[in-house]
Amino acid sequence: MSGAGAANGLARLSLNQITTRGWSLPEAVRGCVDAGIPAIGLWRDKVAETGLARSAKLCRDAGLAVSSLCRGGFLTADGPERRRAALADNLQAIEEAAELGTDTLVLVVGGLPAGSRDLVGARAAVADLLAELATHAGDFGVRLAIEPLHPMFCADRAVVSTLAQALDLAAPYPARQVGVVVDSYHVWWDPALPEQIARAGREGRIASYQVCDWTLPLPADALLGRGHVGDGHIDFRTLTDLVTAAGYEGWIEVEIFNQEIWDTPGELTLRTLIERHLTHLASP
Amino acid sequence: MSGAGAANGLARLSLNQITTRGWSLPEAVRGCVDAGIPAIGLWRDKVAETGLARSAKLCRDAGLAVSSLCRGGFLTADGPERRRAALADNLQAIEEAAELGTDTLVLVVGGLPAGSRDLVGARAAVADLLAELATHAGDFGVRLAIEPLHPMFCADRAVVSTLAQALDLAAPYPARQVGVVVDSYHVWWDPALPEQIARAGREGRIASYQVCDWTLPLPADALLGRGHVGDGHIDFRTLTDLVTAAGYEGWIEVEIFNQEIWDTPGELTLRTLIERHLTHLASP
Repeated sequence: MSGAGAANGLARLSLNQITTRGWSLPEAVRGCVDAGIPAIGLWRDKVAETGLARSAKLCRDAGLAVSSLCRGGFLTADGPERRRAALADNLQAIEEAAELGTDTLVLVVGGLPAGSRDLVGARAAVADLLAELATHAGDFGVRLAIEPLHPMFCADRAVVSTLAQALDLAAPYPARQVGVVVDSYHVWWDPALPEQIARAGREGRIASYQVCDWTLPLPADALLGRGHVGDGHIDFRTLTDLVTAAGYEGWIEVEIFNQEIWDTPGELTLRTLIERHLTHLASP
Repeated sequence: MSGAGAANGLARLSLNQITTRGWSLPEAVRGCVDAGIPAIGLWRDKVAETGLARSAKLCRDAGLAVSSLCRGGFLTADGPERRRAALADNLQAIEEAAELGTDTLVLVVGGLPAGSRDLVGARAAVADLLAELATHAGDFGVRLAIEPLHPMFCADRAVVSTLAQALDLAAPYPARQVGVVVDSYHVWWDPALPEQIARAGREGRIASYQVCDWTLPLPADALLGRGHVGDGHIDFRTLTDLVTAAGYEGWIEVEIFNQEIWDTPGELTLRTLIERHLTHLASP
């Protein structure tokens, strides 16, 4: 976390590349370097497009840290065949993360299986597959970072809905194998947030701090309602203070799903990112 | 909870009148009687339209129980003037509930004040105003029923987002003054639900059990995404078993916000309600 970013107040800023979705991986790498952003969170589809080895080399040669790989997970599929496929895909994601030089693989655990209402069962399936992945991750120096998603995504994307629940799932494993993501959009509303962030810190499990803002109205596709930090209802100073007080000193990764932002030229998006980081997130 | 409904399997069914939004209060009362539904949850705007005394008499004469009045709350307004107005409105709502013959006033507590990001402050404001309302409610034989709303409504409708939080807010008051609403749509995703429903039961605070289903995709107006019981992702048998095991024997009130259902003739809606109640909710 040294290098380009240190002198310009951006020492902890990372671009999650979904935020500049129109850019290929090489474009995103160049964009970060040009803007003085020292780290990037990669997405597997973008990595696949460019090639794994080439993606790794591009980041390395650019002096860019890889803050995370998005994403493994989708562990709730039912039936032994789908379950085996999910397992294989996650094992591969772990190895990709290692080759890309990041220690953080973000897990979006998946929603209810098609046609199922068995939330308890889906949550149990996540716990089961974690048990099969944790050691493998640790062997590759990669930490599985369980991301609780906002409860409005419980049915279709992630049956892990709170930080407390993510920490309970992580509890059986060493902190270097399984951690959690604190994503502002997903957890800001949680009345138990202060105590659960403190707990995550005590247990050494904060693997990633991702940020974007809660803006209203929700769009037709609720997935795409996230805004730039500062455009919505989240109190980032208070949230960041909690994360900092919990001992987290890692990357602050900006991950925004928003069609309008995706339609904006990447350079402009990075300019906004930087301005908001300095205003709302960087230490004074 | 005796009367018309007992013989037809509908002994605990109540129509929350927002579900048949096109109907006036007299029409909704007649609709319930014709369909054999023994109770109704009233809305203040509909009561005002018909007149308070007349509304009370219509329900009484029809032999219809009033399961709840919706709604008080909106306690997060900032500034002494707005605060006084909120207090006055809630005091009036308490008296209306008493005159209508219901012991349950549902509270939707309100979102962040306009332009504010102070979630902690808004939550504290709710606690403060509850302190000013609880005794008054008790004096009128009315219980304030705090309704946790789904976290996706935290910014704009209700800063009370979980059952645990609602119970914490209720804790300083006798159970006959302050209770909680368990609304399937708002709480189904909560990993802490089994323990919190059990706690609500132990503390004698389940004032209302409201039902509708979580359907996807969310519509443009996220408020209107609720479906008939059985059309979505919620496991009503498991949820109802939890509520029953907690000792709740009261009304099961169907409250649906959904434009398509609102555009359906009320008689048809009630037919669906009844069919779904018998299939998914009534004891076998």
